Amino acid sequence: MQKKSENLIKISVDAFGGDFSFASTVPATLNVLKQDKNVFVYLVGDKTEILAELNKNPLFKQHQNRLEIVATSQVVEMDESPVNALKKKKDSSMYQAINLVKENKAAACVSAGNTGALMAISRSVLKMIPGIKRPALFGSFPTMRGFTHMLDLGAGVEASPESLLEFAIMGSVTLESAQKIKKPTIGLLNVGSEDIKGTKEIKETSKLLKESGLNYVGFVEGNDICKGTVDLVVTDGFVGNITLKASEGVATMLGFYLKQAFTKNIWTKLVALIASKILKAFKTKIDPRTYNSATFLGLKGVVIKSHGGADVYAFEQAIKVAIKEAVANVPKKIEEKII
Amino acid sequence: MQKKSENLIKISVDAFGGDFSFASTVPATLNVLKQDKNVFVYLVGDKTEILAELNKNPLFKQHQNRLEIVATSQVVEMDESPVNALKKKKDSSMYQAINLVKENKAAACVSAGNTGALMAISRSVLKMIPGIKRPALFGSFPTMRGFTHMLDLGAGVEASPESLLEFAIMGSVTLESAQKIKKPTIGLLNVGSEDIKGTKEIKETSKLLKESGLNYVGFVEGNDICKGTVDLVVTDGFVGNITLKASEGVATMLGFYLKQAFTKNIWTKLVALIASKILKAFKTKIDPRTYNSATFLGLKGVVIKSHGGADVYAFEQAIKVAIKEAVANVPKKIEEKII
Repeated sequence: MQKKSENLIKISVDAFGGDFSFASTVPATLNVLKQDKNVFVYLVGDKTEILAELNKNPLFKQHQNRLEIVATSQVVEMDESPVNALKKKKDSSMYQAINLVKENKAAACVSAGNTGALMAISRSVLKMIPGIKRPALFGSFPTMRGFTHMLDLGAGVEASPESLLEFAIMGSVTLESAQKIKKPTIGLLNVGSEDIKGTKEIKETSKLLKESGLNYVGFVEGNDICKGTVDLVVTDGFVGNITLKASEGVATMLGFYLKQAFTKNIWTKLVALIASKILKAFKTKIDPRTYNSATFLGLKGVVIKSHGGADVYAFEQAIKVAIKEAVANVPKKIEEKII
Repeated sequence: MQKKSENLIKISVDAFGGDFSFASTVPATLNVLKQDKNVFVYLVGDKTEILAELNKNPLFKQHQNRLEIVATSQVVEMDESPVNALKKKKDSSMYQAINLVKENKAAACVSAGNTGALMAISRSVLKMIPGIKRPALFGSFPTMRGFTHMLDLGAGVEASPESLLEFAIMGSVTLESAQKIKKPTIGLLNVGSEDIKGTKEIKETSKLLKESGLNYVGFVEGNDICKGTVDLVVTDGFVGNITLKASEGVATMLGFYLKQAFTKNIWTKLVALIASKILKAFKTKIDPRTYNSATFLGLKGVVIKSHGGADVYAFEQAIKVAIKEAVANVPKKIEEKII
């Protein structure tokens, strides 16, 4: 039976942005609507473009009652300055998608668009949670034993010990509420595990974390991320962003060489054919599309950034993260913990 | 014909240290002596242990005339504090191996021991090149198009714009002299490629690099490392060390999942057998043992740190790097460039 509209989880989707734009966001939305009958989506963007994509898709007719197009006249370009986007693009798909969260019409917003603009508009429209000084980008990664989560992945470039403590609190609350991990273990990213290692700021942060009542286990090193040593890795946006992109780079390179080895000649291609199921299982296990989204924590609303390169499947996963965090009402949980 | 001793390239090897210690360093030394008739090695460490390993090895008799044991009575433990090692371990294999460089008996030193102690002793015994404020750890990595090189991998935890400029100069000189790369391209690691990205210090460093006369191409991001966008990536020791270890972590995890996929059941194991040559070729291509060593740049002598987990093959590669940098006389080239 169809739920009443007011009982549905409402998500706003910025239909523009990313490499594939409407061709990715619109089919992804329909896939989610098909899979989760409790969801309602506002598709925000150019009405003609959105309708063109919807009409191509056999799922549209079936699920159109849980979908509403919010027509906008502007777009935030991928290389546009955040200041420009904020000041001059009030009728952009991105701005209006965020505004739906501000107006309590949507419980979360998802965008594959310009990261800097998304953060600037989100901060301006939704405002920060009182007591939180800096927002942080929070993401999840596959490890050798499940998943790990990390922040800040690049909302900022620096962070004081106080901000790093706030990041730890926000990340911990998100894991407890949206991912049902009890007392998540927290590690502070450093160049060694001994107390004497690292900068003055890192040592000061470690002291704050020890006194915080959080489940802080101490310093972790770069290789601990993929080992899955802790549930949550805390670092500043400079280190987090570089580490994330370097890790993606290693995975891409290894994929490249693996493919090269299996496509060298007729014989290796034949072996690749025989091994195709195994290679596919391997790829699925570490499919970066599954973990492509990141959440802006610290805002008075759920804003999910999907990877610019997100395809339909990847954007679908980002919407699902938005649903989880909307249901858990992560911003309210953070506010309760901070006050 | 045997070269006269005074014409040989002389390397001092700290025979202790690392996970395998003598069992790795001694056979690696003999392998190098066999492959390169221009090399003479001082094996520094416990004489009994070294002799036991030498006598096990059929290569010993053949090459013993290009080898000398330097007996020492102490060892620097892997978890020992650098200060303690420096003050109380003057007759350690590490200290004496470095001292041979100081006394101009050896042209380079290689150790798989305690990194912090190796740096502290090297700095104290060899001294810094005049004009260089901070040493940096310099290493090489496979990329999608050859190799890239990076520093600082963790000699320090912070670096001023002036130090980062020095790192760029030292790295560039090393690539020109030891690796014969003409005018190596240099990138500064940052969270984006646009001029407005990054911290104040990063922007200031970029300005210094633009004025330096080096082949500086601008900011590079984390994924540019494995793309091989530039010959040399410059960053501080905190970011460099975490990026390096995170990258190693990703490679280990992917290897783990690849192995898991191919060892799942009898059928996948059979396919693995058929694909074994291909999988081996893939592994060889990205074998971390080939790139396991790092050079301390900024010292008045060549000091190579081999990975603590280095096996015979890996330690052999580290000795070869030492030979290259000794032949090129990298410290002298850096000194000429700095003055």
